[in-house]
Amino acid sequence: MYYVNENVKNTTRIFPDQGREPYVRLDMNENPIGLPVEVVDKLRDCITPEFISRYPEPDIVAEKYAKLVGVNPDQLCLTNGSDNAIRYVMQTFAEPGKDVLTVRPTFEMYMVNCWLLGLNHKTVEYDDDFTISIDKLVAAIDDNTTMVILVNPNNPLGNTYSEEDVRTIVEAARAHDAMVVIDEAYHYFTKNTHIKLIDEYDNIIVLRTFSKCLSMAGLRLGVAISNSQVAHYLNSLRLTFEVNTAALKMAEIILDTPGLIDELARIQIEGRTYVEDELKKAGYEVIEGESNFVSFKPNRDATEVSDALKDAGILVKTFGGGLLKGWIRINTGSVEVMKDFITTLAKVDR
Amino acid sequence: MYYVNENVKNTTRIFPDQGREPYVRLDMNENPIGLPVEVVDKLRDCITPEFISRYPEPDIVAEKYAKLVGVNPDQLCLTNGSDNAIRYVMQTFAEPGKDVLTVRPTFEMYMVNCWLLGLNHKTVEYDDDFTISIDKLVAAIDDNTTMVILVNPNNPLGNTYSEEDVRTIVEAARAHDAMVVIDEAYHYFTKNTHIKLIDEYDNIIVLRTFSKCLSMAGLRLGVAISNSQVAHYLNSLRLTFEVNTAALKMAEIILDTPGLIDELARIQIEGRTYVEDELKKAGYEVIEGESNFVSFKPNRDATEVSDALKDAGILVKTFGGGLLKGWIRINTGSVEVMKDFITTLAKVDR
Repeated sequence: MYYVNENVKNTTRIFPDQGREPYVRLDMNENPIGLPVEVVDKLRDCITPEFISRYPEPDIVAEKYAKLVGVNPDQLCLTNGSDNAIRYVMQTFAEPGKDVLTVRPTFEMYMVNCWLLGLNHKTVEYDDDFTISIDKLVAAIDDNTTMVILVNPNNPLGNTYSEEDVRTIVEAARAHDAMVVIDEAYHYFTKNTHIKLIDEYDNIIVLRTFSKCLSMAGLRLGVAISNSQVAHYLNSLRLTFEVNTAALKMAEIILDTPGLIDELARIQIEGRTYVEDELKKAGYEVIEGESNFVSFKPNRDATEVSDALKDAGILVKTFGGGLLKGWIRINTGSVEVMKDFITTLAKVDR
Repeated sequence: MYYVNENVKNTTRIFPDQGREPYVRLDMNENPIGLPVEVVDKLRDCITPEFISRYPEPDIVAEKYAKLVGVNPDQLCLTNGSDNAIRYVMQTFAEPGKDVLTVRPTFEMYMVNCWLLGLNHKTVEYDDDFTISIDKLVAAIDDNTTMVILVNPNNPLGNTYSEEDVRTIVEAARAHDAMVVIDEAYHYFTKNTHIKLIDEYDNIIVLRTFSKCLSMAGLRLGVAISNSQVAHYLNSLRLTFEVNTAALKMAEIILDTPGLIDELARIQIEGRTYVEDELKKAGYEVIEGESNFVSFKPNRDATEVSDALKDAGILVKTFGGGLLKGWIRINTGSVEVMKDFITTLAKVDR
């Protein structure tokens, strides 16, 4: 019998439902309306047979993105979504058999990648008031820790980590030779970013994505940002043709459009503020956060409400277990999209 | 100091030159002209803000591709180019520390993935007459062999493996618990495929790509095809959002266009036949093959000829060492593209 990698063999994956196109998609933290049409039209105009047939070239986007975040291009690794940045970071800098420390709940792909790569997933639980204790997190870092993950803001709670908290964690990790990953998939909605700390500490990797605020989840582009030595190792592991031409061109167009990123964030933050207020006015318990999603506790059973919303054309996220069991998370969109959601919710969750 | 994976640390990568757009690209086995405009226009018409912002869904393409090759969708894993299919196959089914056996020369990413994954790359050399001995290949399979790679047709030699040869190799590999990968990136140009053998043997994985004959190297889509158990393991390892929406939609359009694949192959085979004849008429030694590339021995130094061709707007492939040192490989395109190449070559390689 042929050999099978034990970690892969023992990993059970659950892939998202398909056929989401006809729905208003508030379940996966996408931007439900997407980029402005005139921006997307610029990509359309690039689609030619040669554009499709030519192998992708990432350097132009690497240069423009490096400029945006104030680093050198050799401090970046562009990846097939931050999905793959997470994989590469864990494959390169987490030592098999040791602990990867995350809070719980957090983005579940950290757990899945622990399984796939033979790492032990160690968790620190949120308190019942939906806050996370930095003291507990720091206390959990020990000689068996190989990596600490901070999603900032965290998904699905929406809390951010202060600079002081991050410094404390990074220094504790460093004392135990552990790498710290700061996943800033949602930072655009808060402006809370710790990217400047990569100049001070050698054990920080910041992850970014073009899937959330920048509204191109379909095309797949993530970025790992660190010092040039760390980025060099990640680029040693990446595929020769890691990011496709369409994602690179769309990113280039976004980066070349003055004010677009701020405007995308503004629209979604406005929608978030609106929906938080409306949910509270309607008497719901709400977990507000600094991201593009909001969680609330429905009056009826969460799965029933979710099903009823789906019947009415809206997808939302529920949780099978854990701290947010019984809650519903929605990602926000424009105020208009949120108004439609509130109207529909009022009908299905009396 | 933080941990770094030793295999990644010890791997030195060389990425392709960028800025290839203005050139006639005969260096990387792309289709230099690409898909028909009317086919690409159908992708253009799909590019909307929601198309870009929505996470990709692979099932439709998996179903259509499975139908094309006569297997069930659960026998496939769609990947971010066959680049990533190779990675996943080796990560899942090649046991670290053991031998991955390839002929030499062959597609160099097999060597790079051996480095990255801690595998020993064992090679069987071509003979000086550019043929490969199946006896030598079979003799090299032993208890330390974990995987055998057959690129069919092989790049850069262009030879194919007969069904009898493949059966002999697969049975030898099976006797030593080794997996056999048949990389059919170039099979469209020969119709020599061994995909039917996956029904007979449990230790075969066939790899395909949409980058070569199907002319979408920029968008990234590869496929691993095997029995459903092997495909299940590969799907356990793949990213949640492995293939982007643009690649999936372009593939769907190609698969929905009757006769297109045959026509793409026909144009490139016609160009290959033309350029082989012209090179031989001009007195060149030529390695003919059953693929979309041809190698020839220039009159002058290969690097000088390559540089002169580049100055004249044409990119070709040279080899730093090994069996084809001093040779030039060109991929073929339409007869028209090949005519321009022959005219330019006549000027720079008198």
